[in-house]
Amino acid sequence: MTQFVPGLEGIVAAQTSISMVDGQNGRLLYRGYVIADLAERMSFEEVAHLLIFGELPTRAQLRDFSARMAKGRRLSPAAEAVLDALPADTDPMDVLRSAISVQGSSPHLRKPDAEQAVAYAAAVPVMLARFHRRRRGLPGLESRPELSHAANYLYLFDGKEPKPELARALDTYLVLLADHGMNASTFTARVIASTDSDLASSLTGALGALRGPAHGGAPGLVLDQLELIQTPAGAERWLREARTRKVRFMGFGHRVYRTYDPRARIFKEMARRLNPKFYALASEVEEHALRILEEEHPERPNATNVEFYSAGVLQAVGLPRDLFTPTFAVARVAGWCAHVLEQVGHNRLIRPQSEYVGPPARSPKPIEQRG
Amino acid sequence: MTQFVPGLEGIVAAQTSISMVDGQNGRLLYRGYVIADLAERMSFEEVAHLLIFGELPTRAQLRDFSARMAKGRRLSPAAEAVLDALPADTDPMDVLRSAISVQGSSPHLRKPDAEQAVAYAAAVPVMLARFHRRRRGLPGLESRPELSHAANYLYLFDGKEPKPELARALDTYLVLLADHGMNASTFTARVIASTDSDLASSLTGALGALRGPAHGGAPGLVLDQLELIQTPAGAERWLREARTRKVRFMGFGHRVYRTYDPRARIFKEMARRLNPKFYALASEVEEHALRILEEEHPERPNATNVEFYSAGVLQAVGLPRDLFTPTFAVARVAGWCAHVLEQVGHNRLIRPQSEYVGPPARSPKPIEQRG
Repeated sequence: MTQFVPGLEGIVAAQTSISMVDGQNGRLLYRGYVIADLAERMSFEEVAHLLIFGELPTRAQLRDFSARMAKGRRLSPAAEAVLDALPADTDPMDVLRSAISVQGSSPHLRKPDAEQAVAYAAAVPVMLARFHRRRRGLPGLESRPELSHAANYLYLFDGKEPKPELARALDTYLVLLADHGMNASTFTARVIASTDSDLASSLTGALGALRGPAHGGAPGLVLDQLELIQTPAGAERWLREARTRKVRFMGFGHRVYRTYDPRARIFKEMARRLNPKFYALASEVEEHALRILEEEHPERPNATNVEFYSAGVLQAVGLPRDLFTPTFAVARVAGWCAHVLEQVGHNRLIRPQSEYVGPPARSPKPIEQRG
Repeated sequence: MTQFVPGLEGIVAAQTSISMVDGQNGRLLYRGYVIADLAERMSFEEVAHLLIFGELPTRAQLRDFSARMAKGRRLSPAAEAVLDALPADTDPMDVLRSAISVQGSSPHLRKPDAEQAVAYAAAVPVMLARFHRRRRGLPGLESRPELSHAANYLYLFDGKEPKPELARALDTYLVLLADHGMNASTFTARVIASTDSDLASSLTGALGALRGPAHGGAPGLVLDQLELIQTPAGAERWLREARTRKVRFMGFGHRVYRTYDPRARIFKEMARRLNPKFYALASEVEEHALRILEEEHPERPNATNVEFYSAGVLQAVGLPRDLFTPTFAVARVAGWCAHVLEQVGHNRLIRPQSEYVGPPARSPKPIEQRG
């Protein structure tokens, strides 16, 4: 009899060529490329191609890939209907889960393939922007095929071509969050794919896992907390006082990295450049928060996580707070698809066991005797 | 470094008090009760209460539970909109995945609780029946609060109160399939719940896993294959000839049971009673199929699985073939909910690792150099 492994901690559930998280050394690789190199030099389209097809695209491949992304920026009539039918105050993650499910509905079970992967990656921003406009009483906008994935996403919110540095910042955000080893949503996508189900089912399930704060987090809350802190000068006092009330510091702590998260480092530099007001407060808060956390638990590596400075980047880009986690999904859908394709490439049903710890065998009493 | 465990086979991912699958001895327990006893004496409502709350209901509890089930037989306007917007030829599993997601959409993340569990269990048949009527050009029907869960499901298809023996047969079907240890969909539901996500996300993901033929199977294909075989007299010849073409026998083989699946045994007896024409052909096919499979692989326990005779039961009950797997979900939603509640009761993020087997660290070439 095998032993119960709480949280499956330390169990290797898949071999993957897609990404490597080296928590000890604070390194993240996508198919061998160090994340900092990709963030600096590559577009989301190039990185999505890398994740889904295994290699960075040639010029011709990139042209083809971008054209297919542009073509994928459309919703089925049923997906549009659901985006218009959900109440305006619906959580955008629930909206996205539903829209992906509906968009992926079909008469017959389809084996996941790269073409579908590109289409889903292309459609997710369209869903979010359409819902956001609808809840503000505005009609949806048509995508612009000549814009990049990131620029078109921003364009769809207000019909204005975004400033190049903001489009580029969002592009880098999408690159940085496109994959991250075997996290809970990626694992969910692979479990579902292992039953020979379709890509829409895997993505819907993955989205549902990312919806959980223990995984997808609550990056909007970083900004909420900074607003409560108000000023750099008041940061230390606020944080120490909050700690006596057991208030959690938003944007700190990660299960994997034992050193500074390499993505957080890049976001920090981006936030410094793009969002100086945020940065002035956030960097002061970070310094005190890390010191307080270390005083409390010197044994724990309380590193700044990816949410902290990325919140300042998304704020600079102009996205509303409740679209931060859904925008995480805009990035991660590329990784989810890549993992599903890898899973179905050499598939085997993922089916662990459970250990029964309930009552021993007993006889049911008829209801007359149950009181 | 831990080792890669393909399919997580043999790994215990959860301790559970909900059900025990004893494959060696062909036994299935729900919270200590042997499945045959429950199938014979209990309604789906009693068993759903058992799974969700841990005990069979008293008379007062059952009254309350049934009233809550009756109250839950309604769809949100957005769920109705999506059921009406999806094309009539959409796979009903895709329809159900989408309708559950939409029905479960809300402004704020809700922690899963028993009240939501009962509401989802109650609503699933309403979704299926409404979609089925709509694709036939018929308006949806109002549920009848005085009918049992099983009887109301059948009533919603044609507005006629079903014959008591057919309602009872469906009731028993639902009892038999309500839970089954740590299968792929239940595992999916627990992984999603472990991120502190909501019940709708867990159920949507579970549904997506059940949609995969390697898990939810294709019970409708049992009937398709029997139709090809046509007559008991021709069964052996058809099967032997099919085997030379590597045709898979539908309704045979299971990963868990080493002996006759206890649920299959009960379905066989039910099919004999309710569907004699099916039974005459199916029992002859079973005999030859088991013999042929044993000749080919004497080492394998090629037991008749739960799909084989349950197909004859669902046919007798009058359900269309493409609603067989969705009706499996009508049953299993009770188990999924019970497992989610158990998971969140003492939660810990389920997050296994991956082993990186991709290219070693390398530098990305600019696109000009990539050809």
